[in-house]
Amino acid sequence: MRTHYCGLLHAEHIGKSVSLCGWVNRKRDQGGVIFLDLRDRTGIIQVVSDIGRTPASYETANDMRSEYVIRVTGKVTQRPADSINPKIATGEIEVYAESIELLNPVQKTLPFVLSDTESVREEIRLKYRYLDMRSEKLANNLQLRARVVKTIRRYLEDRCGFMEIETPMLCRATPEGARDYLVPSRTNPGQWYALPQSPQLFKQLLMVGGCDRYYQIARCFRDEDLRADRQPEFTQLDMEMSFMSQEEILALNEELVKHIFREIKGIELPPFPRMTYAEAMDRYGCDRPDTRFGLELVDVSDLFANSGFKVFSGAIASGGIVKVLPIPGGDSTISNTRIKPGGDLANLAAQYGAKGLAYIRVRDGGEIETIGAIKDNLTAAQKTELFQRTGAEPGTLLLFGAGNKGIVNESLNRLRLALGQELNLIDPDKINILWITDFPMFEWNADEKRLEAIHHPFTAPNPEDLAGKSLSIETRAIAYDIVYNGLEIGGGSLRIYQRDVQEQVFAAIGLSPEEAKEKFGFLLEAFEYGTPPHGGIAYGLDRLVMLLAGADSIREVIAFPKTQQARDLLTDAPAPVDESQLKELHVKVISTEKEKGK
Amino acid sequence: MRTHYCGLLHAEHIGKSVSLCGWVNRKRDQGGVIFLDLRDRTGIIQVVSDIGRTPASYETANDMRSEYVIRVTGKVTQRPADSINPKIATGEIEVYAESIELLNPVQKTLPFVLSDTESVREEIRLKYRYLDMRSEKLANNLQLRARVVKTIRRYLEDRCGFMEIETPMLCRATPEGARDYLVPSRTNPGQWYALPQSPQLFKQLLMVGGCDRYYQIARCFRDEDLRADRQPEFTQLDMEMSFMSQEEILALNEELVKHIFREIKGIELPPFPRMTYAEAMDRYGCDRPDTRFGLELVDVSDLFANSGFKVFSGAIASGGIVKVLPIPGGDSTISNTRIKPGGDLANLAAQYGAKGLAYIRVRDGGEIETIGAIKDNLTAAQKTELFQRTGAEPGTLLLFGAGNKGIVNESLNRLRLALGQELNLIDPDKINILWITDFPMFEWNADEKRLEAIHHPFTAPNPEDLAGKSLSIETRAIAYDIVYNGLEIGGGSLRIYQRDVQEQVFAAIGLSPEEAKEKFGFLLEAFEYGTPPHGGIAYGLDRLVMLLAGADSIREVIAFPKTQQARDLLTDAPAPVDESQLKELHVKVISTEKEKGK
Repeated sequence: MRTHYCGLLHAEHIGKSVSLCGWVNRKRDQGGVIFLDLRDRTGIIQVVSDIGRTPASYETANDMRSEYVIRVTGKVTQRPADSINPKIATGEIEVYAESIELLNPVQKTLPFVLSDTESVREEIRLKYRYLDMRSEKLANNLQLRARVVKTIRRYLEDRCGFMEIETPMLCRATPEGARDYLVPSRTNPGQWYALPQSPQLFKQLLMVGGCDRYYQIARCFRDEDLRADRQPEFTQLDMEMSFMSQEEILALNEELVKHIFREIKGIELPPFPRMTYAEAMDRYGCDRPDTRFGLELVDVSDLFANSGFKVFSGAIASGGIVKVLPIPGGDSTISNTRIKPGGDLANLAAQYGAKGLAYIRVRDGGEIETIGAIKDNLTAAQKTELFQRTGAEPGTLLLFGAGNKGIVNESLNRLRLALGQELNLIDPDKINILWITDFPMFEWNADEKRLEAIHHPFTAPNPEDLAGKSLSIETRAIAYDIVYNGLEIGGGSLRIYQRDVQEQVFAAIGLSPEEAKEKFGFLLEAFEYGTPPHGGIAYGLDRLVMLLAGADSIREVIAFPKTQQARDLLTDAPAPVDESQLKELHVKVISTEKEKGK
Repeated sequence: MRTHYCGLLHAEHIGKSVSLCGWVNRKRDQGGVIFLDLRDRTGIIQVVSDIGRTPASYETANDMRSEYVIRVTGKVTQRPADSINPKIATGEIEVYAESIELLNPVQKTLPFVLSDTESVREEIRLKYRYLDMRSEKLANNLQLRARVVKTIRRYLEDRCGFMEIETPMLCRATPEGARDYLVPSRTNPGQWYALPQSPQLFKQLLMVGGCDRYYQIARCFRDEDLRADRQPEFTQLDMEMSFMSQEEILALNEELVKHIFREIKGIELPPFPRMTYAEAMDRYGCDRPDTRFGLELVDVSDLFANSGFKVFSGAIASGGIVKVLPIPGGDSTISNTRIKPGGDLANLAAQYGAKGLAYIRVRDGGEIETIGAIKDNLTAAQKTELFQRTGAEPGTLLLFGAGNKGIVNESLNRLRLALGQELNLIDPDKINILWITDFPMFEWNADEKRLEAIHHPFTAPNPEDLAGKSLSIETRAIAYDIVYNGLEIGGGSLRIYQRDVQEQVFAAIGLSPEEAKEKFGFLLEAFEYGTPPHGGIAYGLDRLVMLLAGADSIREVIAFPKTQQARDLLTDAPAPVDESQLKELHVKVISTEKEKGK
């Protein structure tokens, strides 16, 4: 049907007869000469129909409208010098249409103009996703995604010997982790499959099976209340390796990520710095720090442990901390109104649990302005030490967080990010990728009064922390995240490969031996048949592609995304189904009215 | 941790110090010298520990057992001439172990011997899939699968410009086709997603969106009662193209399949013959003929339309047919006992609906032996014509099917396949791949008394059959299957891309305009916004890999397959879940007792 793609024609084709297929991107009528911009996946070419020169095509050309699907046969011609368009790849040439065949017209007014999808409500773009895809922006994003995936596959296959292996989608429900999507089994009444939250257990079993280096671009599912930029189904680049140390895994992955940036963006990245979780929390209050700018936090707990300012000393006495976010020049740019109760910065801190924001403004000569209770209780020695540690100079604003460690870190982290943005401290062209290592194994689940695995309960504890000690909230894991400008793009760990260690971890998170056996018996048993040391990592592919595309949301790099209500607006899924279908599955819907009545 | 893979060591490494990791495949103790065959994904190397030469490793070597996971450091050495093993790739060399580190022992007796998995019950192999994977057979199959997928991807991407695009897994239930796996939506109470039976509608929408050439290695789901070799989740190589004729699609795919065989098997396939559906049914009684052997069917309805043998003439009078399966030499090899009621051939035919098997045995001089009712009613002219059409010669056995066309074709097809096997007419080394084209659009659903789409209702009808006629059981589709030695490995079609044609097809299969709009309104609407002509194909990847691997079942080329009861014996899925989980999903299980009571 066609001989060439529109966007791939160039000067070397001049004089050739070609057949092209695509959409009318734009039509201009210059009286006796009609110009059609013909668009396909590769780009745009100008088609000319001249009543004198190509009379056979003129009438059809005249009938064409935007987005009509046509086939054009004609000759590639050099454009006159004054009509060369340097903005498009084919701008030097045009095709004189000997014939134009209408393959399919447009029969309805388009719901939006394809050249300006930015201004269209997202719901409309999702409902007419097939039109949105014709816009340059989304088309480019999908092409970029395909290129990224291709680059990843080839690197892993050709340079690292990884094997692509598919793992099941109809799985067993996992009791740990997020909420599962469940699938009733017709042939096993009352029983359910779960869609995988990740291929974690299967990839570990592949290692037990000797597959050694596995990867998969894997669809994963989490039935969560969707936060800002999550999808109920999302894609992971998932991999697992045997007989490799953390060091070897990080090195391999660092080269992979560098390769992606080199191939996709033409950027040569510097080595990725490493930072322990403890250091990241200390300096940034956050385990995925955006290191493109300063405003680092400073722990001053020791300085105020015995302070007469009871807010500080009291916080420390009850196990909390006092930290400072120093803002150079902040004295003049940030008003007290914003810091005091009701101010936007105070509100932001409060949103993450902070009870208030103490501050010190540093003036000329080291004079300070703050509330009396701080000023009156700050000794000269404390002041000197405080200035030194925080790098405070005249003009610096010091914001204090005091209290529960988690709350102090999180609220100061949020303030830091907001102010970094506001004060234009973030260079948008900068790419800072780093490894965060030495995560803790556990966090405390206050509701259930038990330890909970931070990554997942298959993560290997650090042997240094196991020697002679039992597992506790202090135990570090051999787990690592890769962080890109403050966003986690991937995470992984070495895994447990010994039954006794796995049993200890299950016990530590409150799983009884019976429960452990019932739910993970197959894994515990596998460890007894010669399981190699192994580890891996998984990347959020949607997010990685989003960052590479410079898009605002993962929905912009997914062909058919769902809304935050987990709906597909195009096909209108989910939807009710016939009662008979449910009967076959041995399930029924519980009236939600009844629930509301409770 | 390691410097080399076991199976990749060769003579050039002699003299080098290496570190290897893997499993003890076999241990032999020759008194003072211990040989360990060390295995990893790539193969096996012989490790030697000599109490005199490498005393440091001897004691550990002595403690080793099969399937222990170890790390060996040592020197690659030329084997003595008398111990060279030409059967393995590393048979010229061995590694003298300076040290052996036990990484993980085996703590339980293995449930089966890895070198002989053939004799192990499949349930056991599935339960211990991670051990089965260490067997050469399954390991090779999984590696082959990865190579096949890689070969396909690269061909489609590099030579044909296809883009990999992911389509959703949480979809809308499709009313046509097989039974869906359903997923309750927590956030939309009473509503359900369906797992995709194929990405059909999404790939068509990608074409509407201008993506032009799409492919995906796509997981698909069908909740069917599993026949011999089906899986509830299976993998399709799925592709779709715009602006291509059937001819162009077949040519592209023929090159793809040839490329796969060239790369994977080193075989150069001849051009794939084409056969229409009508011809295939006529000659083989089957739309996926195994053309590696003859025994072609011959339609003799016209010859017996007025026969005095009422079984034949009656069948024809009531709209049926009479066909012959001629078996050269069959007179002596196939006894009447097998053909007459209760015989195995009669039973086989009966299984597919045939009421009986008439026969004629051709003897010397053209004498025939058959039942009186046939003999008495066969004129000399009929006999001559019958012999000529069927190629009957002395020694030939003619088996007759008479009655309903579908039943005659299916029963003679099954007889043909069984006898082809029995009479050793099938060369197992032969690879016959052909295209079957011109499928009918519809078949008659006798239960629901309506036409039903044979492929799916988005298949384009042949314009020749539409001109001035309305859609009927006679209408041909522009649909094609690719058949490999009697197995369908793929199928596709050009698609409808015009709203009015799609509406006609929906109407023909009994979908009211309201139902059509409710279920497929988005597709009908999309056709009005400039949809390109498009078409595609999907291959059963599991089956293709199975054939390339020479395996008996697709379960042998899937890492974690399910049983015919759709169970995963390894993780024991599906399984009951907590009542609280179901409550959140607004569903409950209907007691199956109650159902039984009905």
